[in-house]
Amino acid sequence: MSPQFKSLLTRTISGAVFVALVVGSFFVPSYFQFALFVFFAAVATYEYLHIVETDGIRSHKVLGVLMTVLMVEGGYIRQSMSFGWLLVVLLMLSIPVIELFRKGEKPFNNIAHNFLPVLWIGVPFTLAGVTNVMLFQEEALLALFILLWTSDTFAYCGGSLFGKHKMFERISPKKTWEGFAIGGLFACGVAVGLSFVPYFHNALLYEASTTFNVLAWLGFGLVVFVTGTLGDLIESMFKRSYGVKDSGNIMPGHGGMLDRFDSFLFAMPFCMIYWVLITFIY
Amino acid sequence: MSPQFKSLLTRTISGAVFVALVVGSFFVPSYFQFALFVFFAAVATYEYLHIVETDGIRSHKVLGVLMTVLMVEGGYIRQSMSFGWLLVVLLMLSIPVIELFRKGEKPFNNIAHNFLPVLWIGVPFTLAGVTNVMLFQEEALLALFILLWTSDTFAYCGGSLFGKHKMFERISPKKTWEGFAIGGLFACGVAVGLSFVPYFHNALLYEASTTFNVLAWLGFGLVVFVTGTLGDLIESMFKRSYGVKDSGNIMPGHGGMLDRFDSFLFAMPFCMIYWVLITFIY
Repeated sequence: MSPQFKSLLTRTISGAVFVALVVGSFFVPSYFQFALFVFFAAVATYEYLHIVETDGIRSHKVLGVLMTVLMVEGGYIRQSMSFGWLLVVLLMLSIPVIELFRKGEKPFNNIAHNFLPVLWIGVPFTLAGVTNVMLFQEEALLALFILLWTSDTFAYCGGSLFGKHKMFERISPKKTWEGFAIGGLFACGVAVGLSFVPYFHNALLYEASTTFNVLAWLGFGLVVFVTGTLGDLIESMFKRSYGVKDSGNIMPGHGGMLDRFDSFLFAMPFCMIYWVLITFIY
Repeated sequence: MSPQFKSLLTRTISGAVFVALVVGSFFVPSYFQFALFVFFAAVATYEYLHIVETDGIRSHKVLGVLMTVLMVEGGYIRQSMSFGWLLVVLLMLSIPVIELFRKGEKPFNNIAHNFLPVLWIGVPFTLAGVTNVMLFQEEALLALFILLWTSDTFAYCGGSLFGKHKMFERISPKKTWEGFAIGGLFACGVAVGLSFVPYFHNALLYEASTTFNVLAWLGFGLVVFVTGTLGDLIESMFKRSYGVKDSGNIMPGHGGMLDRFDSFLFAMPFCMIYWVLITFIY
């Protein structure tokens, strides 16, 4: 086997396992997705705190991972929500107190960077839990992942085939406007297609007219592909500014967890807002 | 007039005006406190963003102040809560996108430091609004301020008279354990005293037995003086690490707004948690 082929094979297998795990988690008891996403969020938080350490930030890795875990857990397990989120708040408040006792030059850099993954990683995964378990909108959440993967994959393929005009060379040199447009077209197309699949039909609006429902799904596709691409760029900016190529190496051939969820992390809050807004408009 | 006397006079007058404004705001329609606290929070946020700029952070002052203002406004004006807080979320999400287009070396330092005042300043003032206007607990909130001032004043006087053992010389060289203890004693004493004042009697628990009520107020005094002192130290650490003496000069003789609210900013979330917990225990 040539090394290129071997690398492609590794990439494909680990990518397929990842997709199978995420899709599968929607069709088994939600405890499975809870365990899976808590694990993903914890690894991503660890990666963030590990990377900023290279720039002199003193991170509280145990506390940071614990905060993310408790926060996401609160989103999935309703019974422990208040308790889990209360602990997150107390742990956040403990960070400036700990900094009082650690003689550092710039304690507020440490505080600010230790809070950031709670917002960037903890909140989106928690919103996934709230969407799935508390709002019973698991179909919408699964659709979000499908649209993100569609947009990503077709942007990559489209860009490789037709890419000419660089989109953001400074931050992500391979992205092209052609890829962006093709990814967007497919994301919107698949979104409209999903609106006719019985499983997804009522995921955004319950018993809406076909026209309105198709428009709602089209909008969903648009929101996902625009905010997902921005999330991807933001994470590239993060890695580039700290001089790392991948956020980690947990997924063979795919880099780290933060790389894998970059578009999700930014798209998730926008989708939540979009879902609420269309329900109000409707 | 000697300069010392003049400075003391200025300090006393501006301090008295400040106390009169805050106390008065509890006895006029709540719109007044809303306007006052939004102003305080906006100035404190501006001070934070201004100070971190001296260390190479590129702050988004207009966005930062706007986020705090909208957040606090959501806490005071129930009708616009959802809309105000939605805008806060969208503005927060816009910061990493803006950073994509600003060619900076460390965009994530800017993002992290622009989020921090939302948590450090925006959240406590918002909790004040929620306590006052949504939970109708204005007596508890006023008591919190009275206890903070008691603890501060007696810690200062007690420390000046009897202070021997330095508490945290590296961060706040004037604080002594003697001052801390005396401030704490008075805070707890005043807290117990307040429990017998008709206006405050039912502020923590409604119609509780005298023993339990006195204990609840004693605990309140303890929480306020410990977390208030920590808040003071945390803000001193902030100023010291950026080499500034005062956070600003908006209050003649008293420094900036962040200086004036340092203990409140840290004590407020703990008090909120304490109030909820004692209600559950009761």
